[in-house]
Amino acid sequence: MNRREFSLNLLGASAALAFSFPQLPSKLRVNAQRLNAHLAELAQFGKTPEGGTHRVAYTEADRQGREFTMKLMREAKLDVSIDAAGNLIGRRAGRDAKLPALAIGSHIDSVPQGGSYDGQVGSMGAIEVARTLGDNSITLNHPLEVIIFSNEEGGTYGSHAMAHGLTEKQLGLSTSSGKTVGEGIRFIGGDPGKLAQPLRKRGDIAAYLELHIEQGGILEAEKIKIGVVEGIVGISQWEVTVEGFANHAGTTPMNQRRDAMLAAANYIEAVNRVVTSIPGRQVGTVGRIQAQPGAYNVIPGKVLTTLELRDLDAAKIQTLYQKILAEVAQIEKATGTKFSFKETNAIVPAPTDVRVRGLIDETAKQLGFTTKTMPSGAGHDAQEIAPIAPVGMIFIPSREGISHSPREFSTPEDITNGANVLLYTLLKLDSR
Amino acid sequence: MNRREFSLNLLGASAALAFSFPQLPSKLRVNAQRLNAHLAELAQFGKTPEGGTHRVAYTEADRQGREFTMKLMREAKLDVSIDAAGNLIGRRAGRDAKLPALAIGSHIDSVPQGGSYDGQVGSMGAIEVARTLGDNSITLNHPLEVIIFSNEEGGTYGSHAMAHGLTEKQLGLSTSSGKTVGEGIRFIGGDPGKLAQPLRKRGDIAAYLELHIEQGGILEAEKIKIGVVEGIVGISQWEVTVEGFANHAGTTPMNQRRDAMLAAANYIEAVNRVVTSIPGRQVGTVGRIQAQPGAYNVIPGKVLTTLELRDLDAAKIQTLYQKILAEVAQIEKATGTKFSFKETNAIVPAPTDVRVRGLIDETAKQLGFTTKTMPSGAGHDAQEIAPIAPVGMIFIPSREGISHSPREFSTPEDITNGANVLLYTLLKLDSR
Repeated sequence: MNRREFSLNLLGASAALAFSFPQLPSKLRVNAQRLNAHLAELAQFGKTPEGGTHRVAYTEADRQGREFTMKLMREAKLDVSIDAAGNLIGRRAGRDAKLPALAIGSHIDSVPQGGSYDGQVGSMGAIEVARTLGDNSITLNHPLEVIIFSNEEGGTYGSHAMAHGLTEKQLGLSTSSGKTVGEGIRFIGGDPGKLAQPLRKRGDIAAYLELHIEQGGILEAEKIKIGVVEGIVGISQWEVTVEGFANHAGTTPMNQRRDAMLAAANYIEAVNRVVTSIPGRQVGTVGRIQAQPGAYNVIPGKVLTTLELRDLDAAKIQTLYQKILAEVAQIEKATGTKFSFKETNAIVPAPTDVRVRGLIDETAKQLGFTTKTMPSGAGHDAQEIAPIAPVGMIFIPSREGISHSPREFSTPEDITNGANVLLYTLLKLDSR
Repeated sequence: MNRREFSLNLLGASAALAFSFPQLPSKLRVNAQRLNAHLAELAQFGKTPEGGTHRVAYTEADRQGREFTMKLMREAKLDVSIDAAGNLIGRRAGRDAKLPALAIGSHIDSVPQGGSYDGQVGSMGAIEVARTLGDNSITLNHPLEVIIFSNEEGGTYGSHAMAHGLTEKQLGLSTSSGKTVGEGIRFIGGDPGKLAQPLRKRGDIAAYLELHIEQGGILEAEKIKIGVVEGIVGISQWEVTVEGFANHAGTTPMNQRRDAMLAAANYIEAVNRVVTSIPGRQVGTVGRIQAQPGAYNVIPGKVLTTLELRDLDAAKIQTLYQKILAEVAQIEKATGTKFSFKETNAIVPAPTDVRVRGLIDETAKQLGFTTKTMPSGAGHDAQEIAPIAPVGMIFIPSREGISHSPREFSTPEDITNGANVLLYTLLKLDSR
């Protein structure tokens, strides 16, 4: 293996910045054509008439997509195994067997009726990076692991199993595949009876890098090529019940109503107002609603709805929630209704590693790309791994910010750019 | 039969008003105990654990309730028949065979999980009035018909068949009983193949009087004993679709959303604001809502909801609708969504007969009751009959304004009062 000093010609308007990669050729790049061809091939498994991907974890399409992925791993000269949680692991030894592995990867399962980029770009990108290293006879100091986590979309089960383990209760939960989590893990070649095996402890992984589509419209709108993820937002969810009094819509005067629907409308409006009343990138969403009894001619006596708040700062989520509760108290008085909030989910924010983040930003700029430090509004496997290893995430633009849809799209050029940032960030991490 | 002049002692604080009923004893009253006992007996058919009544038209409970009702009609010495639309008709000849019939009645079918007063008070009240006349050997000049209309709650089918006929399409519609309208009519003893038979033309009915519970809270709140219905409100209903764009609730910034749920909330709030912005007794209700795809973590791309407007004045309904549309145009701009309204129902207002209304008011006052002229917010059989005959409606208070619920209740005293107003209004009409 050759070790050469090189300098990288910088593109873009910024001042040229000389820097050195120990032991690496300056022209090293992933194979753009191969990478995008692999993505297109993967999209055949669970292809939908709308041109999207329906490859729900633990289904036959998932199993076939995983077979294809393992074939690519072998072609990249990785030693392939399936851990007991169903995660696909492609490993290659490093120069120093005593060092912990550097891990790169993502997931290939999709949401129902989803797209062909979410998770898949990072998965094919990671395999392409491994293959590029192999093709160029570059051996890292650290062992390299390409990890394709199982069932990300259903609730990051594979990465959770690796960092935290799974409970019996979790194994018994039903999934969109029709199988329980346990049945699904067995279906894809794992072993739900041996879940101590996939567990990694702090120190086992030197760092984990994940390339992913942004799934939002910020990079595209601001014409920025690479997003440097500063953290994955915390997510708090509540089930919200509004109780009024159901009555005849014809005979009950407007001023004698205790209309749960009107109260719910005021609440939805208040959520939007509170969330947008302070600066920042927090988001708040009311996604579900049902009115009871639900007839044209009956004033709703009860409304079941939801609240979801996301931000990188858990304290801000709490502040927003308290402000919403204060608004709700006013709505209760004005409408003669009663609200109750039941927390159903609370995922804490997962900041990415500051040094890894810096390396991604520096690398992207050196490769000539504009960058933006940003939160990830979506959850990712990196979030699960963050408690046991330094993590970093690289975002590429999503067309129109559309995700979880057949219309999800990123350009082959952006995908290639992201994979090259992944490649060089990995090399920099390895050289430290 | 005795014909006597009499004077009625007036109760209440208003100045005594001498008046005369030709041929009638002043102390004539319905039998309060018998009337309320019949109501309680009727409530046994379709009785629910909650203490309400589930006697949906065309069900076995309905059939049994009708058998009981026909027995009461026979005990009241009425000639009982079932017309081809399934209406129960109890007839007694008058002194002048050439005069058209005076009709009184209501319905005994209930909404699913309904109460024991809606329709039932007017039905038992009408039979009690007929029996009181018979017990006192009073023969009217006009023939008397007690009509218990079939399937009122499912859409005033019996009265509609009598005034307008039923189409093949209507006969094929499904009902809450599981049967089509046609099958249901046959089940209760009608003949959907002979629907020319029940049709009445203008002039066949001298007048139709209906006693009914208010189903609203106005009489109780204002401590008024008798409501004189000035008309039955028109009802316009629309199916409302809000189209935005479904997207990831985590990755889509607040200012890049086209949130159909937020737009729907603004719409619901606007309906309330518009309807309450002008004086009057109009009501507007949004009773149904569904968000798609309907997940905590997806910004709703589509919301299906409703609009219902009711008023005695059809022009006012139109004015309100146009004001709502103007608000909606603003909401569309502000939220990047698109609304569409599809009219699904438009029942025109049915004013009661001015002279009949005057007689009810006069009679109630003479009997010592406070009165209030008011619209009926609910639809009634009288609404169907209004185009072919002068109609009048007598309301009694509903406790807490509750209706279509097991908690529906009117006091035995109010029920008796209503039946006495029905009795004397009928006598006054007959003497003209």
